[in-house]
Amino acid sequence: MEKLAQTQWKEGMAFEAQANGHTIMMDAADASGGKNLGPRPKPLLLVALAGCTSMDVVSMLRKMKVTPDDFKVETYAESSGEHPKYYEKIKVKYIFKGENLDRKKIEKAVNLSQDKYCAVSYMLGKAAQITHEIEILDR
Amino acid sequence: MEKLAQTQWKEGMAFEAQANGHTIMMDAADASGGKNLGPRPKPLLLVALAGCTSMDVVSMLRKMKVTPDDFKVETYAESSGEHPKYYEKIKVKYIFKGENLDRKKIEKAVNLSQDKYCAVSYMLGKAAQITHEIEILDR
Repeated sequence: MEKLAQTQWKEGMAFEAQANGHTIMMDAADASGGKNLGPRPKPLLLVALAGCTSMDVVSMLRKMKVTPDDFKVETYAESSGEHPKYYEKIKVKYIFKGENLDRKKIEKAVNLSQDKYCAVSYMLGKAAQITHEIEILDR
Repeated sequence: MEKLAQTQWKEGMAFEAQANGHTIMMDAADASGGKNLGPRPKPLLLVALAGCTSMDVVSMLRKMKVTPDDFKVETYAESSGEHPKYYEKIKVKYIFKGENLDRKKIEKAVNLSQDKYCAVSYMLGKAAQITHEIEILDR
């Protein structure tokens, strides 16, 4: 197995992680004994999910000659009530902006990412029910 | 469901994410059409895993009056060969440093995190086989 990430305890509940040569701070909220020096670990799963599927989609849309002016992804989640408080439900909302964007091609790219290519979606989808929505704005 | 993270397309394969009010850049490697402006999304799963279990462990060790001088976590993974190239195997290596650290208490904290509290471990453990090791260094 390959070493892909590591975290170093800094102080209190703050941890500095390294991945692909980049540094990411994580910390607990003030209310949980941290100083909010970085995000909580659990929402980083949603960051990874949004990043993974966004890269897939941008890459496929490029091949399909679809060029949005703007593209963002919002992720929503609901945690279970009992420990471990994992995400039971996740919603991924894709928001594209641009004139005359081809909805069929965009749907195809999103579905290919969710169903075939995005490893993060595949992994989280084993524990959470993942749904998605596509919004296309003309301007 | 609560909105917990979002990503904004910046350029090429670079995406800027927001979570808990913090910004995290993600990007593809040069070889995949990116500029390596941030980590890849998939290893962020391991960052989240290491952060989640590290916070659990530090929090429990504090209650048990165990104070390491240093604490880090290394994560190793192996991806499947076919799409989606998810992590089939993950190893979490906990490395503690300090004089006369109580191994039994450390093992208890790590096991409670892995088996009960760490939501990230629970979720990723639905797709990957997760194992762990504990190393305790005197100095």
